Amino acid sequence: MNKIQGGVTAAKGFQAASAAAGIKYKGRTDMALVYTETPAVCAGTFTTNVVKAAPVYWDRDIVTKKNPVHAVVLNSGIANACTGLEGKEINYFMASEIAGQLGVKPEEVLTASTGVIGMQMAKEPLAKGAALLKEALSDTTEAGTKAAEAIMTTDTVSKESAVSFEVDGKVVTLGGMSKGSGMIHPNMATMLSVTTTDAAIDCDLLQKLVKDAVADSFNMISVDRDTSTNDTYLVLANGESGVEIKEGTKAYEDFREALRYVATDLAKQMAADGEGCTRLLEVTVLHCCSKENANMLSKSVITSNLVKTMVFGKDANWGRILCALGYAGVEFDPERVDLTIEAEGEELILVKDGVPTGYSEEKATELLGKDKVTVLCDMKEGEASATAWGCDLTYDYVKINGDYRS
Amino acid sequence: MNKIQGGVTAAKGFQAASAAAGIKYKGRTDMALVYTETPAVCAGTFTTNVVKAAPVYWDRDIVTKKNPVHAVVLNSGIANACTGLEGKEINYFMASEIAGQLGVKPEEVLTASTGVIGMQMAKEPLAKGAALLKEALSDTTEAGTKAAEAIMTTDTVSKESAVSFEVDGKVVTLGGMSKGSGMIHPNMATMLSVTTTDAAIDCDLLQKLVKDAVADSFNMISVDRDTSTNDTYLVLANGESGVEIKEGTKAYEDFREALRYVATDLAKQMAADGEGCTRLLEVTVLHCCSKENANMLSKSVITSNLVKTMVFGKDANWGRILCALGYAGVEFDPERVDLTIEAEGEELILVKDGVPTGYSEEKATELLGKDKVTVLCDMKEGEASATAWGCDLTYDYVKINGDYRS
Repeated sequence: MNKIQGGVTAAKGFQAASAAAGIKYKGRTDMALVYTETPAVCAGTFTTNVVKAAPVYWDRDIVTKKNPVHAVVLNSGIANACTGLEGKEINYFMASEIAGQLGVKPEEVLTASTGVIGMQMAKEPLAKGAALLKEALSDTTEAGTKAAEAIMTTDTVSKESAVSFEVDGKVVTLGGMSKGSGMIHPNMATMLSVTTTDAAIDCDLLQKLVKDAVADSFNMISVDRDTSTNDTYLVLANGESGVEIKEGTKAYEDFREALRYVATDLAKQMAADGEGCTRLLEVTVLHCCSKENANMLSKSVITSNLVKTMVFGKDANWGRILCALGYAGVEFDPERVDLTIEAEGEELILVKDGVPTGYSEEKATELLGKDKVTVLCDMKEGEASATAWGCDLTYDYVKINGDYRS
Repeated sequence: MNKIQGGVTAAKGFQAASAAAGIKYKGRTDMALVYTETPAVCAGTFTTNVVKAAPVYWDRDIVTKKNPVHAVVLNSGIANACTGLEGKEINYFMASEIAGQLGVKPEEVLTASTGVIGMQMAKEPLAKGAALLKEALSDTTEAGTKAAEAIMTTDTVSKESAVSFEVDGKVVTLGGMSKGSGMIHPNMATMLSVTTTDAAIDCDLLQKLVKDAVADSFNMISVDRDTSTNDTYLVLANGESGVEIKEGTKAYEDFREALRYVATDLAKQMAADGEGCTRLLEVTVLHCCSKENANMLSKSVITSNLVKTMVFGKDANWGRILCALGYAGVEFDPERVDLTIEAEGEELILVKDGVPTGYSEEKATELLGKDKVTVLCDMKEGEASATAWGCDLTYDYVKINGDYRS
């Protein structure tokens, strides 16, 4: 598997576009389109929030029916959530306008929205945007990147990832984009993320692999413990590589690994760009008695406000880490736990068998100041492990979210 | 039932003291003692965190054995959590020193600690503190207040509450104190809180009433979703009022109500003094199909960082409230929900049947700026309701917890 440049246009037959439709933001792009002329098989996972945005209902219906699709249209600025029947009509209008431009059916166009909850979108900018998007469609890397930029809200960087692998001399490519910075605590879903591939794959098999990839990637990140109303992860496969992915083959294993890689890479990019954050926090729980327990423990540490402010303050106040493990809802022996911090290849053991080592506070502060910090929690109980990603909690998080209607 | 002045010394026969022992803080008191010469029946609830502080193990054992007690000794500065066997020995030393001063057995002295996790306490200040406490014992209101001050950490105000009621011409009094400002998300327990009463009551009945009072008070507050390692709530009853509390009597109902009042009053004082916060946030969920669902929904809103920053920013971004209801783990119809904010007797309906009313943003900002803000969520499903208390999330929360070893 090779990591390559680009995002949603990396795979054969996929084009992308962006446009400044003026939905809410001024002077920037706010609509994106991903298109494949060859119809694509589609799989996806969505938010588990009881309050769901209009595009989530629309997409879930399309994914459930397993019909092939041609496009995904996305907008930023307004989330089209808590907008009632009118919101659903506007979502249909958005799909129809794109379908009209592309000469396909509305049911072949998936939708995704992100931004303020509870505000209605006007139809005019959507119609204008659809025409602009059609005109701008291109299969270049740049077009993919511009699409990734158009869906940003409080994100500070755009998020793309792509890989390829070979099967009998033929190249299979997967490329994806994500947006997400606040209200990030995906649960069986994630913020907006689209991955395209030119692999040929059965719809049910793709859905199975998507669920598998999500479990250890998007479902293991958290910025603020707030599960959004709009979380959507879509994977489109148009088969243009000429490679068919079937269970029990080497190609299947490669495809599975590639999909997991892109999902994990995008998930980590979202955690690292958490609203207001200054560094990526990775928490790995080792030697746990079950995978489920390892997941619960690592997510408990990654979501603790006290651990997050501790990382911001570069203060190795490790009692907060043990405390967060302790309320995860999992039984363990606190007097067996080892805690280690790791950054840029250097390790420092803070706690051995539940009590502090004579570690250097100065060294700890130095390691906690790096761009990416890993906390290793060794439970010394079994064989299972899990990794979760988050970020520090800063003044800027409060500023961004205390400001009027961010 | 009458609300009266004071705290742990309000009930007959209870004395209190405070001392500057120099455990960790300089130039302030850091030890407190509550004492009754008449032995008292004792009930309590403790943290559910797997990682428990040494005094939690000690107290739990005493409460389980149901033997009468004479005193509670408390300290601030160091939590005596994650301190291994040595921490347990030091906790025993603390109880023994007090017992020696009072002429009682160590097992008749409950203990409670709060402060930094993972640091050992020295014996010298504890011995010095025990002697000072003995000397300072007094039954005055001032002595109770000073005890409440001695156990403060990042608290900005001390917390006391007291009530009395009459039974056949005899007065029964209950008075309590609490500390708690950060790492507040009690679960079947709370931060340090001691209530004293001169009622005569059976130990099992008192324990039952304590659990009942905790469910709707301490267990319904959250500052930062972090359940502490030291949460301890103790109630001591010495019988000096001459009034016996038996099930099925008016006195029982009065006592139950009085205990709930003191617990709820102290819990609200803790939420209102949440680390760095500027206002108390109260969330009441109405017309829910079950009490359990109402609890889950109200706690989900109270703990959302996005709702908390929204209240800090005085921005009626109500989509975040609906979003937090949506991920509470409870099914409901979002299109039936009404949301109302209330402050100083004024109400403003933001959302009716899941969609926004034409409310005035200016008025909303005005109400959200008051010292105490209530959010009413009407689910329109059944008869159950619940109230949870929290606070806003501010720059100061980040500052307090990002600072070195707060």
